[in-house]
Amino acid sequence: MTLTPVAYFRSPLAGKFGLPRQSGVAPSLSGEVLLEPEFRGTEALRGLEGFDYLWLIWGFSLNPPSGNTHTTVRPPRLGGNTRVGVFASRSPFRPNPLGLSCVRIERITPDGIRVLGADLADGTPIFDIKPYLPYTDAHPQARGGFTDSVGWQPLQLALPDPLRRELGDADAAALTEILSQDPRPAFHDDPERIYALEFKGRTVRFRVSENQVIVLE
Amino acid sequence: MTLTPVAYFRSPLAGKFGLPRQSGVAPSLSGEVLLEPEFRGTEALRGLEGFDYLWLIWGFSLNPPSGNTHTTVRPPRLGGNTRVGVFASRSPFRPNPLGLSCVRIERITPDGIRVLGADLADGTPIFDIKPYLPYTDAHPQARGGFTDSVGWQPLQLALPDPLRRELGDADAAALTEILSQDPRPAFHDDPERIYALEFKGRTVRFRVSENQVIVLE
Repeated sequence: MTLTPVAYFRSPLAGKFGLPRQSGVAPSLSGEVLLEPEFRGTEALRGLEGFDYLWLIWGFSLNPPSGNTHTTVRPPRLGGNTRVGVFASRSPFRPNPLGLSCVRIERITPDGIRVLGADLADGTPIFDIKPYLPYTDAHPQARGGFTDSVGWQPLQLALPDPLRRELGDADAAALTEILSQDPRPAFHDDPERIYALEFKGRTVRFRVSENQVIVLE
Repeated sequence: MTLTPVAYFRSPLAGKFGLPRQSGVAPSLSGEVLLEPEFRGTEALRGLEGFDYLWLIWGFSLNPPSGNTHTTVRPPRLGGNTRVGVFASRSPFRPNPLGLSCVRIERITPDGIRVLGADLADGTPIFDIKPYLPYTDAHPQARGGFTDSVGWQPLQLALPDPLRRELGDADAAALTEILSQDPRPAFHDDPERIYALEFKGRTVRFRVSENQVIVLE
């Protein structure tokens, strides 16, 4: 089957580094599903305002196109050293590089949909948009496999006041959520090492010491 | 993007007619996700036994390949006479013919996964299998748009005793769920009209009078 993008994602996060590792973990992060021209100004979104969430099926466009040939992956939530089956994980390295994300509808715009909590980088191709149906999609009591047993704690941080003022409340909240979920690769634990995150066209430099993010500028 | 099936679905339902209109509405209906040979006997499913549900991303292979060029559809839940945007519906007629279904894991088999509640026909190609993560996927309080306001009632029925005995409890329960959700096309309301459903290689004939399904043989 051959897929053609119906939309592209617009995000304050330009690259892979710092991207939330699942949808919903940075619930203040706002982005836009920008429809392809053929769907703008049409009724393709009619009725979507009655839903709170939607599904995006999208392409892991930042991965090498060769695709994954391994049948196991090492999720960062397991510290990066335990292998699970590729079909038992949401890893981007999969036989068909399709992503699936549940995002909150913020508002319908003239050219698409503003959404909250996406884990898509800027420029990501989107192949389908579907409404979230709680009667078939919501299973709050479901067991979550290895994700249930991982006692993961968010990092602590306070953004420097000038940066917070410059960003405004909404973007400051989103950046705080992104940093608190620890964007570092698994195994990295050097408190002196400085990382750089691209957010809203700015480069945010930080390091992590103990359970604390220190934003440098 | 070009997709290659990683599995095919095996279902007692051979065709489109009688297929549940969403996953989960026939929760006793059992089918199998049969992995392609390259994934059998590998560790691709390792860890999946710790999850209750999984997502299938699959192809609407029973639709004409030309694809949908309309931006609105008429969902059967709205009686078939109200148009909503294609991206506000889960209709099979969409720009990229991708289906998304949440199914319950019954058990891992040597060649794949037995699942309950699927809405895929026999032979459907599956492009991805992902675990259901309640922390990001479950939103039980979400508004469900037009699906919230439709006061849909299941039909009443009792399978004839011989058929029930022949099928056994599990298949009889699945067939009852399938018939009770009214497989007739929208607008059909002729109590004399006889419909035929293919289930487990049998042809089940029935008609619908008032809110009652009458199974004929």
